[in-house]
Amino acid sequence: MPDSLTDLVEDLALANRILAHEGVLDAFGHVSVRHPRDPRRYLLSRSRAPLLVEPGDILQYTLDSAPVRPTSAALYSERVIHGCIYAARADVMAVCHHHSPAVLPFCVAGKAVVPVFHLGAAIGENVPFWDQRDEFGDTNLLVASAEEGRSLARALGPASVVLMKRHGATVVGGGLRELVSRAIFLCQNAEYQLRAIMLVAAEPLHRGEIERAGTLSLQPNVVTRTWEYWTTRLQASGAAPTRRVRAKRPTLPARATGKRRRLR
Amino acid sequence: MPDSLTDLVEDLALANRILAHEGVLDAFGHVSVRHPRDPRRYLLSRSRAPLLVEPGDILQYTLDSAPVRPTSAALYSERVIHGCIYAARADVMAVCHHHSPAVLPFCVAGKAVVPVFHLGAAIGENVPFWDQRDEFGDTNLLVASAEEGRSLARALGPASVVLMKRHGATVVGGGLRELVSRAIFLCQNAEYQLRAIMLVAAEPLHRGEIERAGTLSLQPNVVTRTWEYWTTRLQASGAAPTRRVRAKRPTLPARATGKRRRLR
Amino acid sequence: MPDSLTDLVEDLALANRILAHEGVLDAFGHVSVRHPRDPRRYLLSRSRAPLLVEPGDILQYTLDSAPVRPTSAALYSERVIHGCIYAARADVMAVCHHHSPAVLPFCVAGKAVVPVFHLGAAIGENVPFWDQRDEFGDTNLLVASAEEGRSLARALGPASVVLMKRHGATVVGGGLRELVSRAIFLCQNAEYQLRAIMLVAAEPLHRGEIERAGTLSLQPNVVTRTWEYWTTRLQASGAAPTRRVRAKRPTLPARATGKRRRLR
Amino acid sequence: MPDSLTDLVEDLALANRILAHEGVLDAFGHVSVRHPRDPRRYLLSRSRAPLLVEPGDILQYTLDSAPVRPTSAALYSERVIHGCIYAARADVMAVCHHHSPAVLPFCVAGKAVVPVFHLGAAIGENVPFWDQRDEFGDTNLLVASAEEGRSLARALGPASVVLMKRHGATVVGGGLRELVSRAIFLCQNAEYQLRAIMLVAAEPLHRGEIERAGTLSLQPNVVTRTWEYWTTRLQASGAAPTRRVRAKRPTLPARATGKRRRLR
Repeated sequence: MPDSLTDLVEDLALANRILAHEGVLDAFGHVSVRHPRDPRRYLLSRSRAPLLVEPGDILQYTLDSAPVRPTSAALYSERVIHGCIYAARADVMAVCHHHSPAVLPFCVAGKAVVPVFHLGAAIGENVPFWDQRDEFGDTNLLVASAEEGRSLARALGPASVVLMKRHGATVVGGGLRELVSRAIFLCQNAEYQLRAIMLVAAEPLHRGEIERAGTLSLQPNVVTRTWEYWTTRLQASGAAPTRRVRAKRPTLPARATGKRRRLR
Repeated sequence: MPDSLTDLVEDLALANRILAHEGVLDAFGHVSVRHPRDPRRYLLSRSRAPLLVEPGDILQYTLDSAPVRPTSAALYSERVIHGCIYAARADVMAVCHHHSPAVLPFCVAGKAVVPVFHLGAAIGENVPFWDQRDEFGDTNLLVASAEEGRSLARALGPASVVLMKRHGATVVGGGLRELVSRAIFLCQNAEYQLRAIMLVAAEPLHRGEIERAGTLSLQPNVVTRTWEYWTTRLQASGAAPTRRVRAKRPTLPARATGKRRRLR
Repeated sequence: MPDSLTDLVEDLALANRILAHEGVLDAFGHVSVRHPRDPRRYLLSRSRAPLLVEPGDILQYTLDSAPVRPTSAALYSERVIHGCIYAARADVMAVCHHHSPAVLPFCVAGKAVVPVFHLGAAIGENVPFWDQRDEFGDTNLLVASAEEGRSLARALGPASVVLMKRHGATVVGGGLRELVSRAIFLCQNAEYQLRAIMLVAAEPLHRGEIERAGTLSLQPNVVTRTWEYWTTRLQASGAAPTRRVRAKRPTLPARATGKRRRLR
Repeated sequence: MPDSLTDLVEDLALANRILAHEGVLDAFGHVSVRHPRDPRRYLLSRSRAPLLVEPGDILQYTLDSAPVRPTSAALYSERVIHGCIYAARADVMAVCHHHSPAVLPFCVAGKAVVPVFHLGAAIGENVPFWDQRDEFGDTNLLVASAEEGRSLARALGPASVVLMKRHGATVVGGGLRELVSRAIFLCQNAEYQLRAIMLVAAEPLHRGEIERAGTLSLQPNVVTRTWEYWTTRLQASGAAPTRRVRAKRPTLPARATGKRRRLR
């Protein structure tokens, strides 16, 4: 776990780029983390494609999704998703909203995603659907008002993932690295589920399997391994964010490559 | 918006390469923009794969698709698509014709593309089909004559996209950046629609949703964000076009990388 | 067209790598060209993955697929495919055998590939199937004997492509660049046909369309454009073959990048 | 074949990265080789994403999957897969466990993989399924106990591949390079089988074909060619492992590129 706010801001920039590099986020989508010392605040980038987010882009917000300090920066119009979920779920420390290609077919078809392999158990037994039409009729499908954000948070309930009809998904986690793993495993699970349906059918894991396998993504040894892998893949692509020089960062390889600054 | 013809020519070269890099164009397809001061002219590259187009490849054409200045360069045989649509639609400022892998299955199957997610609403409620056979019988399927170009423009009517049976698609926009967004969102929509059909079925958005969500791609904040993202991805791949040094270009990151000239 | 045997050898090495880079060939498959001055000989690499083929790997063979000069190099065991087709078809100047992922599902399912879009017309109206079992029973599925090669050439008949059940495809052309275009367009056509079948169904082009659109890939302007595009993509990946410095090579961009030698 | 333990360790690190680069392994999965002089030991990396494995990460294990030398390194929790298979199968010299995207849909659907093209014959006529539920009820789906490992080895029996319901696959080989080929050909076979089923259906090869074509992947000339190809692709990506300078390594190209160390 990061030991300071600065480290957490750097990890959040890194998480933005990992999720973009692994195909969860594209020009859209966003990821936030709750403030480590003030649970009534959260950290989120200004409006920017996640692959480009730098530590300097990260702003602090109150739980009503207003920036703590006045800013002239453009902000994500859907940031209420984050504020409303942090307000409703004290256990949630990180939130990601995305439109990943793996999940969108399920959002369009209104087809439930169920955990179909061991890592997919990280999404939990029940992935609820939220249909904005039910309460709000025909909208532009963005979650831009506090009412919409609260409605989405109610639909999420105690779950780890909520699918949003014709729009995307929102994923939550007990920490940033857990969230990143869950978001990536959700996409893999959706892809395998779709292909299994094309072959025959896809039955969900048993409840006992979901409970046992679902804790895997929370284990420190698994999170350390996936975080190192995804970070190294991102660095090799030349798209890692800027980072201050620090004395010790054990899970990250040396960063002396000439390509590190290429995407900034 | 670009503030001079030179800027617009550079943006057009960039749009060619962004659309190629994002998988809309390949060795074929082309993108044009109407002349900013003379609505009876448009700008289009000489015949060249879009990923390779440089500002110096851009030529001016009259609306009957003849080059304004005599040239020995090979020209796109289907440039009448552009001229005929600019002649028929005063509101259209940019046109793209392509054979993207995401859209071709619909063109082959004769299956309608409908908007199935919020960004897909940018294609509009009605995406007409044009079948060259109806008026011209068995052809080589290119739109090479003025009669064919006018027939296609009639089929497009007031829509933003027209699918061409067994051939591809033509997309129009109120500006170059809007066009690029719509062309990319069309491909995403087609991909998700196909996969939703494989799962269950794909119902279109409501008319009210299409109207509200469809304006999203036209909003300056969205276009700024997507343009920065797609441009940076292109630059990171080493495939950005040549550009003159200019004093101010706020949405583009620094371009001092050694890879910038690699694809030229 | 190359003006000397040296140029043709360099083009053949380039064609090997273009077809590998565009996903037609992988560790397997091979491409040959008939000797420009002696129609009883053809040029083909020693046994090597096509992405790695250098001009120095190219050997000359007689039409019974024996090397003209004694060699200790390992040779492709299926080179009889090339010799038998050159012997049977005086009009064929280039041959490619491959197992591309786009075509294999059709080879496995025994499903006919038909031209479904304008560029796909380059494969011709009739793509015959060859089933090695019919004459040879259970084999290792390689075409390694002269009898097998002649049987395959008979199945090809006057066509441009023959599918080989449970194995792959063999494509022929009136020249090397035409062959490369046809091989790539075949893969695109197969991919779009499969996806159209998943949507609804895929009807072939009319005979008249196939005749008219099928000549497109043979037109010099189209071949020039695709060859430049595929060559530049290959060069940008760092995988272009070694080439002697020559005075003039108009369709190829400057090759001064530091990455050019990386894959050798 | 490597002529020393050091060479074998370097080959094992290379095999880890080849299998990751070709899409068989991701953050998870592992590959081992039996000790060349002591058949009661095997070599396997400490717990690390395979794309990042270095020769220095390789440890020696006894067949009860305990490290030969005490270590503080984190170990793969599923290493019993390797130990139990080496104990049960004296002919097996290398083992790979993976969750490849090509195979997972079959594992989820409970659909048998059958060899459908000549290279796919390397998987053998019979690919058994193992369902952990049958003996162990609801688990976390990992193969972490000796009982689970022995149960899996029994299900594998004399076969070359065993599919694990809702989890992945385990592949074995008579040597490391044979194993790498079989693991990659399994993924290609599964992908083509799924797509053939979408088109029509996928019938397996005949038994005689499987026997004859199945030996192809074991032939030295084929293994040399594929190993050179996959190694060069890995090197070109900048992800090859560290290697000591050695006098002679005939199948590997020169490694003087500046990108070689990038992923470490």
